[in-house]
Amino acid sequence: MTETEPMLGVCYYPEHWPEREWASDAAAMLETGIGMVRIGEFAWSRIEPEPGRLEWGWLDRAIATLGAAGLAVVLGTPTATPPKWLVDREPGILPVGADGRVRGFGSRRHTSFSSKVWWQESRRIVTVLAARYGENAHVAGWQIDNEFGCHDTVLSYGPEDLEGFRQWLATRYGSIAALNRAWGSVFWSAELRDFDEVCLPNGAVTETAPAARLDFQRFASEQVVAYAAMQEEILRAHSPGRFVTHNFMGRFFDFDHFTMGRLLDFASWDSYPLGFTEQFPFAPDERADFIETAHPDMAAFHHDLYRAVGGGRFWIMEQQPGPVNWAPFNPVPKPGMVRLWTWEAFAHGAELVSYFRWRQCPFGQEQMHAGLHRPDRSRSAGGEEVLRVAAERKQVGTLPAASRAPVALVFDYESVWITRIQPQGADFDQYEICYRWYEAARRLGQDVDIVPPGASLAGYRAVLVPGLPYLSDAALRAFAATDAAMLIGPRSGSKSQTFAITDGLAAMLPVRVTQVASLRPGLAHPVSGGLTGAAIRWREWVETSGTPLACFADGSAAAVEAGARLYLAGWPDAALLADAMRHVLARAGLETIDLPAGVRLRRRGGLLFAFNYGPDSWAPPSPPKGALLLGGTPVAPQDFACWRLPG
Amino acid sequence: MTETEPMLGVCYYPEHWPEREWASDAAAMLETGIGMVRIGEFAWSRIEPEPGRLEWGWLDRAIATLGAAGLAVVLGTPTATPPKWLVDREPGILPVGADGRVRGFGSRRHTSFSSKVWWQESRRIVTVLAARYGENAHVAGWQIDNEFGCHDTVLSYGPEDLEGFRQWLATRYGSIAALNRAWGSVFWSAELRDFDEVCLPNGAVTETAPAARLDFQRFASEQVVAYAAMQEEILRAHSPGRFVTHNFMGRFFDFDHFTMGRLLDFASWDSYPLGFTEQFPFAPDERADFIETAHPDMAAFHHDLYRAVGGGRFWIMEQQPGPVNWAPFNPVPKPGMVRLWTWEAFAHGAELVSYFRWRQCPFGQEQMHAGLHRPDRSRSAGGEEVLRVAAERKQVGTLPAASRAPVALVFDYESVWITRIQPQGADFDQYEICYRWYEAARRLGQDVDIVPPGASLAGYRAVLVPGLPYLSDAALRAFAATDAAMLIGPRSGSKSQTFAITDGLAAMLPVRVTQVASLRPGLAHPVSGGLTGAAIRWREWVETSGTPLACFADGSAAAVEAGARLYLAGWPDAALLADAMRHVLARAGLETIDLPAGVRLRRRGGLLFAFNYGPDSWAPPSPPKGALLLGGTPVAPQDFACWRLPG
Amino acid sequence: MTETEPMLGVCYYPEHWPEREWASDAAAMLETGIGMVRIGEFAWSRIEPEPGRLEWGWLDRAIATLGAAGLAVVLGTPTATPPKWLVDREPGILPVGADGRVRGFGSRRHTSFSSKVWWQESRRIVTVLAARYGENAHVAGWQIDNEFGCHDTVLSYGPEDLEGFRQWLATRYGSIAALNRAWGSVFWSAELRDFDEVCLPNGAVTETAPAARLDFQRFASEQVVAYAAMQEEILRAHSPGRFVTHNFMGRFFDFDHFTMGRLLDFASWDSYPLGFTEQFPFAPDERADFIETAHPDMAAFHHDLYRAVGGGRFWIMEQQPGPVNWAPFNPVPKPGMVRLWTWEAFAHGAELVSYFRWRQCPFGQEQMHAGLHRPDRSRSAGGEEVLRVAAERKQVGTLPAASRAPVALVFDYESVWITRIQPQGADFDQYEICYRWYEAARRLGQDVDIVPPGASLAGYRAVLVPGLPYLSDAALRAFAATDAAMLIGPRSGSKSQTFAITDGLAAMLPVRVTQVASLRPGLAHPVSGGLTGAAIRWREWVETSGTPLACFADGSAAAVEAGARLYLAGWPDAALLADAMRHVLARAGLETIDLPAGVRLRRRGGLLFAFNYGPDSWAPPSPPKGALLLGGTPVAPQDFACWRLPG
Repeated sequence: MTETEPMLGVCYYPEHWPEREWASDAAAMLETGIGMVRIGEFAWSRIEPEPGRLEWGWLDRAIATLGAAGLAVVLGTPTATPPKWLVDREPGILPVGADGRVRGFGSRRHTSFSSKVWWQESRRIVTVLAARYGENAHVAGWQIDNEFGCHDTVLSYGPEDLEGFRQWLATRYGSIAALNRAWGSVFWSAELRDFDEVCLPNGAVTETAPAARLDFQRFASEQVVAYAAMQEEILRAHSPGRFVTHNFMGRFFDFDHFTMGRLLDFASWDSYPLGFTEQFPFAPDERADFIETAHPDMAAFHHDLYRAVGGGRFWIMEQQPGPVNWAPFNPVPKPGMVRLWTWEAFAHGAELVSYFRWRQCPFGQEQMHAGLHRPDRSRSAGGEEVLRVAAERKQVGTLPAASRAPVALVFDYESVWITRIQPQGADFDQYEICYRWYEAARRLGQDVDIVPPGASLAGYRAVLVPGLPYLSDAALRAFAATDAAMLIGPRSGSKSQTFAITDGLAAMLPVRVTQVASLRPGLAHPVSGGLTGAAIRWREWVETSGTPLACFADGSAAAVEAGARLYLAGWPDAALLADAMRHVLARAGLETIDLPAGVRLRRRGGLLFAFNYGPDSWAPPSPPKGALLLGGTPVAPQDFACWRLPG
Repeated sequence: MTETEPMLGVCYYPEHWPEREWASDAAAMLETGIGMVRIGEFAWSRIEPEPGRLEWGWLDRAIATLGAAGLAVVLGTPTATPPKWLVDREPGILPVGADGRVRGFGSRRHTSFSSKVWWQESRRIVTVLAARYGENAHVAGWQIDNEFGCHDTVLSYGPEDLEGFRQWLATRYGSIAALNRAWGSVFWSAELRDFDEVCLPNGAVTETAPAARLDFQRFASEQVVAYAAMQEEILRAHSPGRFVTHNFMGRFFDFDHFTMGRLLDFASWDSYPLGFTEQFPFAPDERADFIETAHPDMAAFHHDLYRAVGGGRFWIMEQQPGPVNWAPFNPVPKPGMVRLWTWEAFAHGAELVSYFRWRQCPFGQEQMHAGLHRPDRSRSAGGEEVLRVAAERKQVGTLPAASRAPVALVFDYESVWITRIQPQGADFDQYEICYRWYEAARRLGQDVDIVPPGASLAGYRAVLVPGLPYLSDAALRAFAATDAAMLIGPRSGSKSQTFAITDGLAAMLPVRVTQVASLRPGLAHPVSGGLTGAAIRWREWVETSGTPLACFADGSAAAVEAGARLYLAGWPDAALLADAMRHVLARAGLETIDLPAGVRLRRRGGLLFAFNYGPDSWAPPSPPKGALLLGGTPVAPQDFACWRLPG
Repeated sequence: MTETEPMLGVCYYPEHWPEREWASDAAAMLETGIGMVRIGEFAWSRIEPEPGRLEWGWLDRAIATLGAAGLAVVLGTPTATPPKWLVDREPGILPVGADGRVRGFGSRRHTSFSSKVWWQESRRIVTVLAARYGENAHVAGWQIDNEFGCHDTVLSYGPEDLEGFRQWLATRYGSIAALNRAWGSVFWSAELRDFDEVCLPNGAVTETAPAARLDFQRFASEQVVAYAAMQEEILRAHSPGRFVTHNFMGRFFDFDHFTMGRLLDFASWDSYPLGFTEQFPFAPDERADFIETAHPDMAAFHHDLYRAVGGGRFWIMEQQPGPVNWAPFNPVPKPGMVRLWTWEAFAHGAELVSYFRWRQCPFGQEQMHAGLHRPDRSRSAGGEEVLRVAAERKQVGTLPAASRAPVALVFDYESVWITRIQPQGADFDQYEICYRWYEAARRLGQDVDIVPPGASLAGYRAVLVPGLPYLSDAALRAFAATDAAMLIGPRSGSKSQTFAITDGLAAMLPVRVTQVASLRPGLAHPVSGGLTGAAIRWREWVETSGTPLACFADGSAAAVEAGARLYLAGWPDAALLADAMRHVLARAGLETIDLPAGVRLRRRGGLLFAFNYGPDSWAPPSPPKGALLLGGTPVAPQDFACWRLPG
């Protein structure tokens, strides 16, 4: 991550508006402080209204108009929305749900990643698009497709998916005997004689083999990445010097974003903090203050995740500018929040924040999704806030490069899949525990980098491992190479690569789990000693030669320390988690501060930001040394302050 | 609505009982005060036990027996239950669910309104039935089919439904370009090249275009009405001088009842107040007092709705006489309620109340549904109450014609569809808000007429518009023609005819909605000023040149007055709604009275009724001037009183 | 039930472990006090890895090894898991769900009991297995299949199921006219002209005929029993002198276990008290104390049920030895519970308790299911408790034969089906009411025998009939032959054999039910008089010439006494049930004791056991006369005591 000037962008759909308005829209974007405009990602039916008849005129003119105004254009490949004529000619491209029913035309993402015809058609449309605009002076870069996997489209259960899975397995295992061993097929007589006997892990009488389900998820994840790589290759071939990115959807874990991130110049993600807050299982009392602001770690967690996915570089491709249309309830953000979210993205290192969308579309499925302007062309409340951001942006100038955070949190897509396939307790969710650990560190004032397992941990003073059921060799090597204080969560090391029970935790510290219990809501196992609180949802019994720092009521260790590593033998409730976090951060020699539920700090180079999501003003207990760059103290609700720290 | 003598009827199934008992049953009906008997609507397999073999004998004798006893017969066409042999010969008549599965034989309504063969077969059976009994002296009239659309059967998703929808669209739009414009098909590349490319709006990966879904609902609604018109035409041709009606199911909005009502001599509806109360999303505390009485507006709302559907005339074709079998919980009505419901129907203008059914059927799906008699032929508790009604009926004599109510509430089927297709907040339900506004007016002692949008509002002093997302020209003309005080609810005028965002509200009053929020349960936006309370579920931000009567905490107007019109920028909670209603009624110059939660008043001509659904006796604060005709004061729980007002 | 030495067993899967470990496993079993080992029931793919290629070697060696160690082997027929090659060759054996979708390979029980090919294949594999091991000296007996019906596999909705159902109906009714009468087909024109017109009772627009659904359940139940009989016959033919049993799954009522029990030498059942407690709809407060111990009647109810199913003899084939993997939440049993459950089984007459499983399997669907050992071969907490049981077993020696209990509770599978098909109130569950009545008797210190309707009641002093909607002639004869005090629950006698309303209750006592109400949660009808409490969920109005012992607030009888029989006109809440139970037991001359919620007594011959599931120690109010054999007083939580009573 390097020093950057904070940039603004917007998503625009020239095909939705009369051509005569494009130029004035473009001029207005510039006036709003916007320098980048993303277009084209759903426009296949306009680009190719009939099979083979390509209509470039409108798109030529749109790019020319936007570019002439001084806007850099990001062009999306339109593969999220193949038109009806293609679906009618090639119905085999449609995906199939886990219930065995074909998922049809009428919305978007109606394709299976396993369809050979779909790959052909994708190659064709991406190639002609890249060939035409690859060297266009106004095209700064490319977005591959749109929100891969959205609407549950990573997994498909049709004949070509089965064929693809069989081939993938044949390659992975070489022999059916190896597959039978890996899957534990002897269990329930599931042994197969040939890869042709493999079936998809849906539609069975009851649960199918967890190893098979995990492999199906891996296969599907790899397919998505391979499909993106196919597009990336075409784009790079035809569009030298342009960047390639993808806009990942937040709160989405069905494929491995880290792997796809390696294809991209940088990651971008779509930030809908209120919508995501609606979907997160917060308790009613903790939700109450944040319904109209978003929970204070919701955007931040993703910023830190996608900074890692993008190898240190990320954009917000779609920033919520007002209410959305797709959550069960869609509140209006409180005044100030669009500005706050934008600056928070910059504070976490975003190079650009692009709003979705320039103008609210009066028709179609997303007509209730706000934009920077209303359908009648007037500026929306969110649009007004962007004007203020644009002014502040000039005031601040260049933002320094962000230094590595002192704390790393290890996040792993496979771990999410493993615990989804085998929750063992209905409320065990790997993303949720990661989020809670991230929140706990930030409530204590920390900056956190999110890293994939196996990434170098050099330079981190504390490492959080909320749970890695499968500890790969790479992950273990990275852990072995650091002497950071480490907080390790339950279920770590409990599974082999082929989803069998293993004693992998022993490679982390001298702890052996002898029993595990999932605890229904309301049942808690109190913890006391060096840490205080309780295990909820999940509790383990362990044997250890390490030091029990805290114990359950039955004397069994609840927290075990061994050297710089601390293991929690359960899902910690908020009190136990805060205690454990404090303990580990102290051991790491990190200063902490007790922040209110709604306040978060974030440093970027020599800048310190304080964001207030809460209902009350916040005055720092001791005023930061350094000049106030933006905002003031106390920090008002839905406001933030930024100091330039000395040195 | 004219002066009528209150009449009683009953639903009877001669085919369920030994022929030797028909005459005694008929005699007993007469003794019970019953003058009308509905028969035949599920008897196809008895009328035509084999293809083409018509067995009229039993039905001839049944009609003769009932008629001979002095009963007027209403004959139902048996198209709700085509027999198995027909389904086996013509499986294409079966409907298809939104999940793509054929909905099979074994219950009722197993037909698609799009099936040409089904239309042929319907024409055939209705024609032979009408030909045989059209001029039968005992047949007073006809019921077309039974509870159209019940069990979610308006929409069907089979090949003929698709074909019918395509034709309907071709007629409506003329060109595919027009359809693409209307549906906003450019959104997500959904543009079509030909009507043959149209697909049904089910089974897509995610949400389909709202305009397409609305058109599909309109198409389906029109089909149901056309199907009814087909039967009506046959019946009128063969049965001169007889009335034609349909028994609408309560709490059912999948097709436009107003349109169908125009075919009919009068409307009839099936009144199951306890079952409907079970299904309505009441809060637990407000439900508690009414589980065994029904909520006090449940039947009344429908009476007033179907009086409008029937052009001023309506019957209760099926009145709940005891517990039903089809709600999740099926309580026994408290003693007195069957009588109360019956008189309430008369008070609202019903010409006849017919009980479902004469005798509880010991077999089949509805065996737990009470009748006026038990399976063992003894009189049920409900039957006893009918005896009392019959006696009181004589005592009262002719009921005066009802005058137009002072208050009109505009109810619209399309508005229900629009907000179902796009609730934007999970608990936004257009029927529910209409019900709540109706309740609020009646808690203040008002009589309410329910009217469709576009109906003349002449003579009304207050008009309630709880929400009309689409304001048609006809609706606007009717509003323009009245100077009644008007209370207008949120989302009014927000949509065009083709489900696009529009500023239609401006045609009602100078209010422009700039933002809308849906509020999850527990989140309320307080309102103060000239009105007090809060918005729940839905809140709007508005700009206006009108007078803000009350504001939200952020200063934005919550209630805007412009001339005689008051707009509520949100879903009012009970307090705000009561306040607003009081304000509007005062402006209309209407006297109000604060009634307890369980008491309702209703006038019919010079009669005043007071119905007590609540747990406590109720004494009118000032005794009505006029003679007590029935009951006394205080009005006991589950009782009512009726006064003949002077003048 | 005869005098037995309490025996221990275990479930073992030699195919899951290296052959070199079998001998040491066997030796360790012996050391643990285990004498019986069940194997083979999921091993088809190992026995017949290719069509027709039988691999006996491994199984020969496994049996030899286990037998050589001194273990008796129970061999399971492997028909719960036909291998993939068979499914691929004969896809017609797959079951079809109520949603019309084929239920595929990938787990277990993927077969329809109607498939002729499946019967052939089952005969084939059972025959070769029985032929090979039928006279093996180490094989003590056979388990037919595994947990028949588990995962909702009794009912299947495919073409052969339809064909089988039609034939069954043709046999049962002889003529289609008789079927039409029995089913009340005249209702909704469902009359059929031929058995070929019968369709399955799924997939209709709404509810299908209850009589048809009941017949379909009867047909399916008989099919399961016939399938078991087919296997039993083969086993007996090839394996003289060996016992035949089946391991029934607890909390499972989809087929008639009593009928199947008649085929077996004894019943066995699979006891997962914590998992079943998770699934039972306990109120949160009553659940709280028992999440980690199981509810104190959960295992006991099933012991008493399966003792009856087995004609007085039963085993536990699978005893939970720690947490399981299949409930929504899977707690660890509190220390002592595995031992307590084991002794409780013996106290209720179990001849053998076999644990599932010897060693936790590290792979496959059940990898999170605990065993007596961990995957790493170390002994689990449950395994430690078994060692203690084994020691205590020696200490106690032979257990006396159990005498008939003083109290009988009539349990009926058809009653469960009838109330499921027609709950009338969403929370009416026949198993639940039976469980609650059982609990109430045991809270008063009683031993209870569970008996099927029609079984002789001779010798019982009190008979509990929580509800028998259909009172068969046999049931009535058994009731007529006893003068025991009888407590009879709601809905008894309300249905005919063909699911029609009938006045069958009159044959029990002079009570005629005139109205029934289902009461939603929160609505209770208070009862006072000779008994105090309330009806919840269900309430009846009755006419009677008997003595109303207690009445509802409206004066209608809530409890009617006639001779020795007491009828409850509603679902009693805990207070009313306790009162009624006390009344009936007093009338029977039985002494009662008020036990805490977590304590239960059980006698076996001259032994008295007290089991403490609760959180507090329990001291008997007056110490039992007799010598303490195990444990002491007060009885600690999760502990028990056993006294040898004098005489």
